[in-house]
Amino acid sequence: MILALAGGVGGAKLANGLAHLLPPGELTIIVNTGDDFEHLGLHIAPDLDSVCYALAGRNDVARGWGLAGESWAFMDALKGLGGADWFNLGDRDLATHMLRTEGLKTQSLSAVTAHLANAMGIVHKVAPMSDQPVRSIVATDIGELPFQHYFVRHQGQPAFRGIRFEGMESARPSPAFIAALDDPSLRAIILCPSNPWLSIAPILAVPGVRERIAARTVPLVAASPFLGGQAVKGPAAKIMREIGLTPDAQGLIHHYGDLLDGLVVQTGEGAPSAEMPILETNILIPDVDSQTRLAAEVVAFAERLRHG
Amino acid sequence: MILALAGGVGGAKLANGLAHLLPPGELTIIVNTGDDFEHLGLHIAPDLDSVCYALAGRNDVARGWGLAGESWAFMDALKGLGGADWFNLGDRDLATHMLRTEGLKTQSLSAVTAHLANAMGIVHKVAPMSDQPVRSIVATDIGELPFQHYFVRHQGQPAFRGIRFEGMESARPSPAFIAALDDPSLRAIILCPSNPWLSIAPILAVPGVRERIAARTVPLVAASPFLGGQAVKGPAAKIMREIGLTPDAQGLIHHYGDLLDGLVVQTGEGAPSAEMPILETNILIPDVDSQTRLAAEVVAFAERLRHG
Repeated sequence: MILALAGGVGGAKLANGLAHLLPPGELTIIVNTGDDFEHLGLHIAPDLDSVCYALAGRNDVARGWGLAGESWAFMDALKGLGGADWFNLGDRDLATHMLRTEGLKTQSLSAVTAHLANAMGIVHKVAPMSDQPVRSIVATDIGELPFQHYFVRHQGQPAFRGIRFEGMESARPSPAFIAALDDPSLRAIILCPSNPWLSIAPILAVPGVRERIAARTVPLVAASPFLGGQAVKGPAAKIMREIGLTPDAQGLIHHYGDLLDGLVVQTGEGAPSAEMPILETNILIPDVDSQTRLAAEVVAFAERLRHG
Repeated sequence: MILALAGGVGGAKLANGLAHLLPPGELTIIVNTGDDFEHLGLHIAPDLDSVCYALAGRNDVARGWGLAGESWAFMDALKGLGGADWFNLGDRDLATHMLRTEGLKTQSLSAVTAHLANAMGIVHKVAPMSDQPVRSIVATDIGELPFQHYFVRHQGQPAFRGIRFEGMESARPSPAFIAALDDPSLRAIILCPSNPWLSIAPILAVPGVRERIAARTVPLVAASPFLGGQAVKGPAAKIMREIGLTPDAQGLIHHYGDLLDGLVVQTGEGAPSAEMPILETNILIPDVDSQTRLAAEVVAFAERLRHG
């Protein structure tokens, strides 16, 4: 069994590769919910949606987020009526948010996510990091900003100073997260190539998770989101520099510390001086074939670390 | 000042004629909210929307309800995810419901309606019959049904036995309704050609309204929704027959009793034996010109009754 921790679009790509590689029952994908928020009365869970849309093959590859074949009549009408237009809600995407919001009135986020994933034809287990609401708050040079205000409204432009997670003290890992961490057949934990601060940090900050991971008997491998000193997508490289780290293998090793057993980076971009086992390969995975190829390489790398 | 009481699509047509006829400040349109309901977490107010969409010139004339140029990507996605699909929500229409639902968290339905109407460019006063929630429950041969289940889900096919209004005991007329009824410059009250039971009855049932109307010093005139023994639209004629009345002038006079000072019916369809003043004219008003023409005739008829 493989446990993958994922955030948004970047993480969803490797998660999708793992889903194509592994049979149902041998993969659990735990997704960041720190960027969930309430907007226009809807419970929006951008990372859960990015992962589910990717696994369902419904994600828009060209735009890089949301659903393929999306339309924007709702947003157009909303703007016309003077409604908040800083967060784009596609007509089809709205159905997901609406059903989630309705479901949450009587069910846990885990149950609602399982229901939606099933309705999308997803056969693997996808679950939130926690069923309790956690909200990422980003400290920036213009003050604290709720995550989506930092990320979407301000387009990640304010300088990153840190992040805290409102509600985390009352959060518990979701049942699927606990089950995967405690599963005797667990073979590896994989950090998908998601933003280390915005996507992975909230998952690791759920009370009890760090301790469980520290006590693990299987390798933990991270896939780098950096390539040529840039993030494949999003503000991760900018944040690394704002924090005083380099957006590369060395910076990731410094950031994750002894959490990692191995690191997967772009060919030619390893950190020769580090004692960390490193797999160099092509980490650009724009399509299902390359995603499945990288997933197979990452799993084999972890297997070697487990038996080495 | 003219006070018009209106329900859905039929009533919206004469209301739109009055809006084209009268200057802002000389017309108040009070709209039925008994068919409001909560659906997928949204507060849906079908009659307020029908009136506002008509006055804004945004209504779909061919389909007979909703917005012109509407698209249905949301419904398509909702069906694909197994969501409730018996009530059609257009992509653009959703923006109205979403903003109303959000607004109601902090404001009255009157305030939210004024805001939406203003955003649609409507210059006349449109207000709900009450700011308190009232829900029409229809008694039928298959049992009691919430209004939209009777009207949309069962397409008005169960036999009508009666109607009651949940929450009415706690309802008060909206501020605009009271202001219009108490306005010393009020010249007439007009019942738009809406369904007498489903649309007009709830408005008249708001506590205090019957008494205020009984004490009026201005004429109350009803425009018939019937033509050739049929309703122009909807189940009004079927309901008349199920209640034991004829869907015509005689039936309306019997139904409204001494509430009326005058009745406007289709040419050649008056009730010669009645003592009620009757205006016969063409009540088919599919476009703005005919709506304005009928509005002018109805207002002139009421003026004659006032001075006669």
